[in-house]
Amino acid sequence: MESMTDAPIKITKTTASKLEQVDFSNLTFGKNFTDHMFVCDYKNGEWQTPEIVPYGPITMEPSAKVFHYGQAVFEGMKAFKDDNDDVFLFRPKDNLDRINKSAKRMAIPAFPESYFMEGLQALLNLDRNWIKAGAGNSLYIRPFVIATESGVSASPSSSYRFMIICAPANAYYKGEVKVLFAEKYSRSADGGVGYAKAAGNYGAQFFPTSLAQAEGFQQIIWTDAKTHEYLEEAGTMNIFFRVNDTLLTAPISDRILDGITRKSLIQIAEDKGIDVQVRPVSVKEIVEAAKNGSLKEIFGAGTAATINPISGFGHKGETFDLPKLESSYASNFKKELMAIQYNTKDDPYGWRHKVLS
Amino acid sequence: MESMTDAPIKITKTTASKLEQVDFSNLTFGKNFTDHMFVCDYKNGEWQTPEIVPYGPITMEPSAKVFHYGQAVFEGMKAFKDDNDDVFLFRPKDNLDRINKSAKRMAIPAFPESYFMEGLQALLNLDRNWIKAGAGNSLYIRPFVIATESGVSASPSSSYRFMIICAPANAYYKGEVKVLFAEKYSRSADGGVGYAKAAGNYGAQFFPTSLAQAEGFQQIIWTDAKTHEYLEEAGTMNIFFRVNDTLLTAPISDRILDGITRKSLIQIAEDKGIDVQVRPVSVKEIVEAAKNGSLKEIFGAGTAATINPISGFGHKGETFDLPKLESSYASNFKKELMAIQYNTKDDPYGWRHKVLS
Ligand SMILES: Cc1ncc(COP(=O)(O)O)c(C=O)c1O
Ligand SMILES: Cc1ncc(COP(=O)(O)O)c(C=O)c1O
Repeated sequence: MESMTDAPIKITKTTASKLEQVDFSNLTFGKNFTDHMFVCDYKNGEWQTPEIVPYGPITMEPSAKVFHYGQAVFEGMKAFKDDNDDVFLFRPKDNLDRINKSAKRMAIPAFPESYFMEGLQALLNLDRNWIKAGAGNSLYIRPFVIATESGVSASPSSSYRFMIICAPANAYYKGEVKVLFAEKYSRSADGGVGYAKAAGNYGAQFFPTSLAQAEGFQQIIWTDAKTHEYLEEAGTMNIFFRVNDTLLTAPISDRILDGITRKSLIQIAEDKGIDVQVRPVSVKEIVEAAKNGSLKEIFGAGTAATINPISGFGHKGETFDLPKLESSYASNFKKELMAIQYNTKDDPYGWRHKVLS
Repeated sequence: MESMTDAPIKITKTTASKLEQVDFSNLTFGKNFTDHMFVCDYKNGEWQTPEIVPYGPITMEPSAKVFHYGQAVFEGMKAFKDDNDDVFLFRPKDNLDRINKSAKRMAIPAFPESYFMEGLQALLNLDRNWIKAGAGNSLYIRPFVIATESGVSASPSSSYRFMIICAPANAYYKGEVKVLFAEKYSRSADGGVGYAKAAGNYGAQFFPTSLAQAEGFQQIIWTDAKTHEYLEEAGTMNIFFRVNDTLLTAPISDRILDGITRKSLIQIAEDKGIDVQVRPVSVKEIVEAAKNGSLKEIFGAGTAATINPISGFGHKGETFDLPKLESSYASNFKKELMAIQYNTKDDPYGWRHKVLS
């Protein structure tokens, strides 16, 4: 096994696979983990030899900085299998670049590309039977970094742990999704950490989201904290609005995650000749478009859901339903994207990355 | 031991105290922990029986939500010992109320008062020899809550762990403190989690603070994210400005922590007949006051530092030095506060809470 990586990855295989215990037709997202995990510690100013070990609990000091100061970042990516049992990632280098951008904002050292790419490959190779072919099946991959130094003073950790854990996933369908446009709470500030996949950004959304859920909305679309007049993104998805045949989405800023699905969709849509406007999208124009019938679709774009159509939204006590379309942008883009991801059509963009054959 | 608490706290004492190994005259803040820790798990919708156990590592799932979504809150408090070996806390109920307020914002269940107060008492009783008498000596107490459920989907955890760990501390003196007024980065947004002691608020400050440190400033004074025109607070301290004989400090909002030291100082200052103005404090007025000589002092107020005088500040490339005063508000308030904390004078406010005698 060691021979397949140039990076010095130490591999310890499990002696008791859990694969047979998992019902692959009925998976809860992010709940079952594969047999192995990737672990690499940072200390004395450098990343140590990466290891792949059986998936299992880790031991932490109660005073570890991640618990007290949320010094932690993560990524989300997926592996797909085609009918030849080849395994593919989607733009994996972008996930590495983004975790390192997130890490920089959280004062965490960057992780080396070779450790990441070769670590992924070795890990997927060991757990390749956890990846099932068939549209909608995938392996969700969660790289993350946590601050491990013991000490309750508010300063950057001197030690970190980079890990990759993996969970098999089925097609993502959560039923109808109605969203609430944020009016009071906010997700991020100018000059803040909203553009980073910093752990604390997510926990901070749970409470406002629970309030929205109590009103019958599954998710929130965050607006700018300054005025609440512009629509930014959802909790784990960037958001697109289709007004007549124009596609609108907010520009990237230091408040918004630079989503890989988002930028891929923009490219696909433009190549189809669709008018894509990347610009601030106001609540006002979307409410007006909903009222005059020109608002055709809203959908979220993100790795977990791929593309998630939204059936309606709430704003200032009013709710608006979106039309049910025969042939939506959302479903067309999703087909297109999945064809690239699952290797059922050519990839003109070079996004598909074969990792195992 | 069990008899001292009404709450059902299970106690397991250490068999190997580390007390003798610690040099109490030379402590690094937050690095040495006492012999015991308090642990209470939340599951099946309720807090389980609290335990006090020997301080030591804990075992966590790599997929625990605290690592991925920063669902975690904490508190900081201190125990003080007088010359009779009695031990006191300072307004401990306010820490409980605040951790529960923070918890609510982070979708974490509230912790019961009896478990908290009796847990603290039992823990301090076991570790009472770690608390040294003498002005400046204290035991820093860190209650915190982390989300422990295994699962990488962005939703609130169903299980939590509440812990209290303690670290002995000496008088806090970090040398001269110069601060930079934030111009680009920000700490919190309207509608965000800035008022909560949410873990992620702290990690998010490390990178901007490191940039300030590279310019010769030890800390940042955060300004409002909207305009950067108003001074809010420092990383772990609320901030006071003395202009002539008037004391200015920012009002509490959803961006600013409601500091216990801050509100105690406001009370003490008002009772001394000082004009205290709790109102937005503009960068402009402070820069002008520095230029015309009416700015006499800036100081931080927080549990760790008590009161921390600031020797100068930087703003838009200019630096301003503050005068060195014979008798400052900062040093007078600090004496007053410490006299209450260490039981060397009457406490007209009922802030001192005797926990062990
Ligand atoms: C806040 C946020 N926005 C958008 C996205 C979508 O990004 P991507 O398409 O790269 O998964 C995610 C998920 O990663 C996210 O966490
Ligand atoms: C952001 C922030 N501001 C102010 C303070 C000071 O609060 P207190 O006086 O209650 O310690 C703290 C420390 O607890 C803090 O973390």
